[in-house]
Amino acid sequence: MSAPLLSRRDLEFYLYELFEVETLASRERYADHNRESFNAAMDIAEKLAEEYFVPIRAKVDMNQPDWDGEKVIMIPEIKRAYDAVAEAGLICPDQDYDMGGMQLPLVVSACAMGYLTAAASTTNGFHALTAANANLLETHGTQEQIDTWVSRLRTGEFAGTMALSEPQAGSSLADMRTKAVPQADGTYRLFGNKIWISGGDHELSSNIVHAVLARIEGAPPGVKGISLFICPKFLLNDDGSLGARNDVQLAGLFHKMGGRGQTSTALNFGENDGAVAYLVGEPHQGLKYMFHMMNEARVMVGTSGATLAMCGYQYSLEYARERPQGRKPSSKDPLSEPVMLIEHADIRRMLLAQKAYAEGSWSLCLFASQLVDDWKTHPEESGRQAAFELLDFLTPIVKTWPSEYGPKANDLAIQVLGGAGYTNDHPVELMYRDNRLNPIHEGTTGIQSLDLLGRKVPQNGMAGYQRCIEGISADLQKAEGIRALVTMCDALDLAVKDLQRTTTSLLSAMTSQDIDLVMANSVRYLEFFGHVVVGWMWLRQGMTAAKALEKASDDDAFYKGKVQAMNYFARWELPQTAVWADLLCGLDDTTYAMQAEWF
Amino acid sequence: MSAPLLSRRDLEFYLYELFEVETLASRERYADHNRESFNAAMDIAEKLAEEYFVPIRAKVDMNQPDWDGEKVIMIPEIKRAYDAVAEAGLICPDQDYDMGGMQLPLVVSACAMGYLTAAASTTNGFHALTAANANLLETHGTQEQIDTWVSRLRTGEFAGTMALSEPQAGSSLADMRTKAVPQADGTYRLFGNKIWISGGDHELSSNIVHAVLARIEGAPPGVKGISLFICPKFLLNDDGSLGARNDVQLAGLFHKMGGRGQTSTALNFGENDGAVAYLVGEPHQGLKYMFHMMNEARVMVGTSGATLAMCGYQYSLEYARERPQGRKPSSKDPLSEPVMLIEHADIRRMLLAQKAYAEGSWSLCLFASQLVDDWKTHPEESGRQAAFELLDFLTPIVKTWPSEYGPKANDLAIQVLGGAGYTNDHPVELMYRDNRLNPIHEGTTGIQSLDLLGRKVPQNGMAGYQRCIEGISADLQKAEGIRALVTMCDALDLAVKDLQRTTTSLLSAMTSQDIDLVMANSVRYLEFFGHVVVGWMWLRQGMTAAKALEKASDDDAFYKGKVQAMNYFARWELPQTAVWADLLCGLDDTTYAMQAEWF
Repeated sequence: MSAPLLSRRDLEFYLYELFEVETLASRERYADHNRESFNAAMDIAEKLAEEYFVPIRAKVDMNQPDWDGEKVIMIPEIKRAYDAVAEAGLICPDQDYDMGGMQLPLVVSACAMGYLTAAASTTNGFHALTAANANLLETHGTQEQIDTWVSRLRTGEFAGTMALSEPQAGSSLADMRTKAVPQADGTYRLFGNKIWISGGDHELSSNIVHAVLARIEGAPPGVKGISLFICPKFLLNDDGSLGARNDVQLAGLFHKMGGRGQTSTALNFGENDGAVAYLVGEPHQGLKYMFHMMNEARVMVGTSGATLAMCGYQYSLEYARERPQGRKPSSKDPLSEPVMLIEHADIRRMLLAQKAYAEGSWSLCLFASQLVDDWKTHPEESGRQAAFELLDFLTPIVKTWPSEYGPKANDLAIQVLGGAGYTNDHPVELMYRDNRLNPIHEGTTGIQSLDLLGRKVPQNGMAGYQRCIEGISADLQKAEGIRALVTMCDALDLAVKDLQRTTTSLLSAMTSQDIDLVMANSVRYLEFFGHVVVGWMWLRQGMTAAKALEKASDDDAFYKGKVQAMNYFARWELPQTAVWADLLCGLDDTTYAMQAEWF
Repeated sequence: MSAPLLSRRDLEFYLYELFEVETLASRERYADHNRESFNAAMDIAEKLAEEYFVPIRAKVDMNQPDWDGEKVIMIPEIKRAYDAVAEAGLICPDQDYDMGGMQLPLVVSACAMGYLTAAASTTNGFHALTAANANLLETHGTQEQIDTWVSRLRTGEFAGTMALSEPQAGSSLADMRTKAVPQADGTYRLFGNKIWISGGDHELSSNIVHAVLARIEGAPPGVKGISLFICPKFLLNDDGSLGARNDVQLAGLFHKMGGRGQTSTALNFGENDGAVAYLVGEPHQGLKYMFHMMNEARVMVGTSGATLAMCGYQYSLEYARERPQGRKPSSKDPLSEPVMLIEHADIRRMLLAQKAYAEGSWSLCLFASQLVDDWKTHPEESGRQAAFELLDFLTPIVKTWPSEYGPKANDLAIQVLGGAGYTNDHPVELMYRDNRLNPIHEGTTGIQSLDLLGRKVPQNGMAGYQRCIEGISADLQKAEGIRALVTMCDALDLAVKDLQRTTTSLLSAMTSQDIDLVMANSVRYLEFFGHVVVGWMWLRQGMTAAKALEKASDDDAFYKGKVQAMNYFARWELPQTAVWADLLCGLDDTTYAMQAEWF
């Protein structure tokens, strides 16, 4: 069975109707662009995805990377796909022309890259990580470092990684131990072990540039003593050609439930004389810098969760349209023709829920991308500042909600297919497995929730929080009186009020109660906030659709679907938040009071 | 890392404290039994599981069954494990001595078999299906059929299957087409294709006995024209020795996301002269008979969901106790010692939720097993009748709730381990994959929900429904005034009232509204009912624990854990049902009104 990876009609809805990206062409950076060039970028990516990635999707999964003790073995088709993406200039289409990019708005680039993620969420991860690594170095490196590394990363000649976790330090970065010893020539030597390093070794590029966090000898303890280093697999000669092999060795590959298109590695730095490394920026500022890359990676993770949800939705939708099975409860005549799966209300529920999760998540991720664009290119300083503030605030939500609800969508995609969905004959079970990593990497859901409640909400006098609530209120006001939006407005208004009450209650408790108790249910708070924000995105989609429906067109069915999915979210999802509000406001101590020995 | 497959303390809690199975020894059938013999059965099963299944768990997963065009290839360790279970008499420990069983109560047998399921949910499926097949033939076959097939199934010499699904008929059994042509000698010849036949071919047993549904030529359409046949892989000579190969051929193996310890096959019946088959019972009564096996299989599926949840819980609990990581929000000193994972409130939430799902499901499945025991051996006819009625009513819930919440528990087990949980180095990701089949096979969640709302609730003047509600009310009354149970009593009481209101509202709507609309949200109704029934099981566990806590003992921690998990269910799970009640009572038409072309 063949199904579209993503719905192009839907992508165009976000770009040209919801986020009105054509207006960006008025900004100097995007002056060359218009709807045609935006569509062309999506066309290229879709073509590459269909040509190079879809045909090898199952084979990549069946043949996970292996290690022969010397080098990493992957099926050769991956290298072909890797090269094709690089040649098409799709490693960093959002970057400046002179840095090898297409100078596309990130929101457009995200749509284009969506095709690659949908077809090969992890195989394409080599390039995605490389792009993030290049952005990191470009922002914090010296001009010499930029000249040396960034352009060769952006062409795919070199690949990049981020190396944070260690065997004893997963989520707890404060406990990182890798040591950096200063050398007379200004370089450093690294000694230590890193794990879970995606793309940490492979033969796809001529060199691999690790962005490594380590402690300079004598640095302060905890996160305030961590510095950022460039540590390449091969050192460079003065003329830029590849020189000696650096002292960073592959110690092993992790074999995983999914995500088998990418290597996940254990790396040993400095088994011999130490791995030669170059400090980036100031000493002890590494974690701050890395969070530049990490925040980008977090939005990327959310987008991956959303994209796989979109792709699984499209697939199960196509299946439900084509597969006859059974009859409706009202029709008991066994001689009547079976109906298509999509005619059953429960199948529609599963498709509607997927649509609500997938398109809700996806619009949120594109909204975040648009905030990046505004932060970087808004003509006014206040606009740039506002965008940054909201983006910074929303990051844990953008990372988490699509990561948690994306797999739920894929779970429903499997269920729509029934037994067929459980087999390797269809790709939905693979999406489900691939997507399961997203609530874990780049900060687990638990870590994100501590970031949201413990930091993002209170920080800067609650500026980010206020900006978010104001944005929702403004849209609620705009929606007032529009009949198609009443259900959502009522549900969202209630949920926002509950959220405000809950936030006030929790922040006030922070001043008087055990902080461990106040933070105990932070994951539920994050889910609550996520529901409100995704509800907001659905309200915005519903507003756009309702407006379009004012004049009849051939596209009415599309817009009616948007309104119905919005209503699904309003009726089936948002009301749950009232229960969560009660639990949170009451400072429920069930998990806090539970004792280890009672389990 | 090693962790117990199941908590023996917990199993003994269910058997000897909650369900008081020692009292069963007063029934003649169990006269030889006592606590020692019950424990011995668990010991044997645990030993077999640890010796034969745990060591090959990962290898079985990595080497799924293959087909060389002639026969099925599996790793030889599976045959060793298969034989060991058969030799230990563990294919059907609940059957009578003279049928090769141990004459154990099913509730005890279920605990023993739990070890095999926990270690190898699907490898052990060969025997589980065989046992169910033997029970079916014993109930509906002629004495000659019983003599010919049943004892050889019960020893594992022959294996059994159930063959229902066809390429065009998955959930919709009415559309089954396999044809049975009567022969002059009283036998039949079968022609047709079956899919998803678990254990449909393999080399583990000398013969395979398929229980096949087919239509005798000229039979009425729909489910009323389906008959049940025995169709063996090898015909038997008059002396019982294996004779000619029957005309049933392996057409292919399905490769699956999980469950790789068992073959899932496509079988062709009658590619040549027709597959020789023997009618079981009366013509056209096949579906009714098959539901005998199917209902047993449905309880088995729920139990599998619950068992994998229990096993993943034990594993992630052990990991959380041993793995140091990070500090509590109240401790910011990076030089302080990291705490164990289990000290973090969010990890406790994930462990408590697993405990609530796993032990709630498990107690429900054992309750169903006890109902089977009572149905078969209660000294009074009224007791047998009451047990049957409640069991019959609860079957869709016993099948579904553990199937849906078991994978949710495994999902949390992965999250507790973080990145490690996503790798093949730990078995939790395998449990998650294995468990995903349970909401699909033996009737999907959607099918179960139609069975519950459309049939089980209204049937026999709502007798089963009433019996269930009365059982809950009686326990709520018993619990009144016990301080430790107040939270649960309040929450459950509210939920039961909402459930009654919802049921009345839906049944009344059936008489006046479009039945397709009334049934549209049946899955939510099933989940709602499941929550109430599992809440009931938690109340019963809490009552037992509260009673034990009245006198201090070394076991206080265990009982406190039970009370806390009960409270978790009361505070975090049951309140959601109020939202579902509103949705259902309002006959929400979101999914019903959605049109296929709007997607």
